[in-house]
Amino acid sequence: MKKIGIDLYGGDNAPESVIQGAIFALENKFLNNCELVIVGNKKDYSEKFNKFNNVSFIDAENTVDNHTKPTQALKMKTSSIYKGCELLKNKELDAFVSAGNTGALLSAGTFVAGRLKGIKRPALAVALPSKTTPKILIDAGANAEVKPEFFYDFAREGIAYADFMGIKNPKIAILNIGTEEGKGSTLVKNAANYLKEKNLNYVGFIEGRDVFTGDYDILITDGFTGNTVLKTIEGTAYYILSELKASIKKGGLFAKLGALMMKGSLYSLKTKLDYRQYGGTFFLGVNGILVKAHGSSDSEAIANALYVASEAAKKDIVSRITKEV
Amino acid sequence: MKKIGIDLYGGDNAPESVIQGAIFALENKFLNNCELVIVGNKKDYSEKFNKFNNVSFIDAENTVDNHTKPTQALKMKTSSIYKGCELLKNKELDAFVSAGNTGALLSAGTFVAGRLKGIKRPALAVALPSKTTPKILIDAGANAEVKPEFFYDFAREGIAYADFMGIKNPKIAILNIGTEEGKGSTLVKNAANYLKEKNLNYVGFIEGRDVFTGDYDILITDGFTGNTVLKTIEGTAYYILSELKASIKKGGLFAKLGALMMKGSLYSLKTKLDYRQYGGTFFLGVNGILVKAHGSSDSEAIANALYVASEAAKKDIVSRITKEV
Repeated sequence: MKKIGIDLYGGDNAPESVIQGAIFALENKFLNNCELVIVGNKKDYSEKFNKFNNVSFIDAENTVDNHTKPTQALKMKTSSIYKGCELLKNKELDAFVSAGNTGALLSAGTFVAGRLKGIKRPALAVALPSKTTPKILIDAGANAEVKPEFFYDFAREGIAYADFMGIKNPKIAILNIGTEEGKGSTLVKNAANYLKEKNLNYVGFIEGRDVFTGDYDILITDGFTGNTVLKTIEGTAYYILSELKASIKKGGLFAKLGALMMKGSLYSLKTKLDYRQYGGTFFLGVNGILVKAHGSSDSEAIANALYVASEAAKKDIVSRITKEV
Repeated sequence: MKKIGIDLYGGDNAPESVIQGAIFALENKFLNNCELVIVGNKKDYSEKFNKFNNVSFIDAENTVDNHTKPTQALKMKTSSIYKGCELLKNKELDAFVSAGNTGALLSAGTFVAGRLKGIKRPALAVALPSKTTPKILIDAGANAEVKPEFFYDFAREGIAYADFMGIKNPKIAILNIGTEEGKGSTLVKNAANYLKEKNLNYVGFIEGRDVFTGDYDILITDGFTGNTVLKTIEGTAYYILSELKASIKKGGLFAKLGALMMKGSLYSLKTKLDYRQYGGTFFLGVNGILVKAHGSSDSEAIANALYVASEAAKKDIVSRITKEV
């Protein structure tokens, strides 16, 4: 029975969103054959979980907030984020989910849970939708400054995620501003040379316009660019849908009627585009499965993150990372 | 009478697209009070322009293609790109438009037309749509590697573009992966400190998700990130519209009927999102107005670029850059 931890105090709407999300996950069998370990105050909240027999608590405090700096967080040993990462390290948890302060979580993941042997740089990985299998973007924001050799760590972490998604022998690409060799920054040119020497299915450069459609499975980039890509996708999708709404409004009765008739199509599109719902954001390369839920996560997003974490625990995404590639 | 040059051989569909675009621009008074100078072979093409009295030719050869390296391009002195930039330098042209090889054009712009006094780094600037006034993204791809002090050049170039767009005292932001001070890469932190010391309306960091909606006018970033943002917007818009189509198809009769009824709304959205049509891509910081049209430009895009170039020449966007800010 896998033990899945959840940070009771992580997220803008915590603890309410976390409690509701956990209950939703439990009621809808998102946590089949798993024990849910709530990292937070048992006294105040255990009552809500009385009806479930696979829920336990580990006491922790609500001390890390959005303004806590990563270095401060490492000193707050009774916080839910610190405790969760400590439990991962001690194998008392198989996975830990938090919608809390990203910087604090990444630093606790790296220094409290600790890095896997042979991995220097854990990284955030997300799955993007595409017309076929999902595409994995890594690093999506953990390492703002990188060296070419980190790209090999990111590649191995990405392969483990791809494996988890059922993608075998994934095609690995580097994000660049041109596809020809010799284009781009010194960093990506050196990283490309570095990856070519490794035993990987490296396929070359991919540009931002081909993020959803390019012939690749894993897109490797530094955390600054990766995070910017992710947020630009989010901003563009939001802008397009809001302009579409405005345009329908201006378009008069026919346009409004038309929109009503294709409401289902628009809704399914919106869901598909929401990467928070889509795959899950993993912090890969640390000792244990660490799932980052978005700070503004509602209960549904929390439930989804718990599901993703439990699946990753069952499929043992972590030990895949250090296997030979 | 301003002289606007066009590269006859620039673009995937040149010279046909250029000829048609130029004729469209001339017939539709896009080039009011301007002379159009076609940089390319007069003998073969002058006949098509006989009916216009404000068209002249300057002979140049079709020698730079998409595979020409920037350093090679600087040696090809009879090419249309080289000639156009030379004419800019000698003030024989007020503006030059090319849809040709970007690397070749940027290097000819920098080293043949030459940099403005006090400007170390020319940069590509584009205008993005928003709910209110346009937003300017700079550098959109000229400098893959930058230093913090380049951000000041980019700011001054951006201010000239904003002025051209009618935006006074523009709010200047730096693209980052968080909005709090102390977040992000060393580069953007140092660049922020650098800009704060200058007499600019610097307003802080903006994230990718707020590119279209943030409270700013000019977004400064390095050319690698800027180019990636631009292409990610393009890729996301394309993906969303194609998924919407697929979703309508699957949605059955009602969805199809609905889509038909809101066709106008969808079309106006698509047009608005096409940044190539929207403002124009300027290479700012060089001696003269250099407009980069997209390589896949059709005749309409060429005509638009000519219009933008002529307006920029009339409003003297260049001398604005070196004015005190």
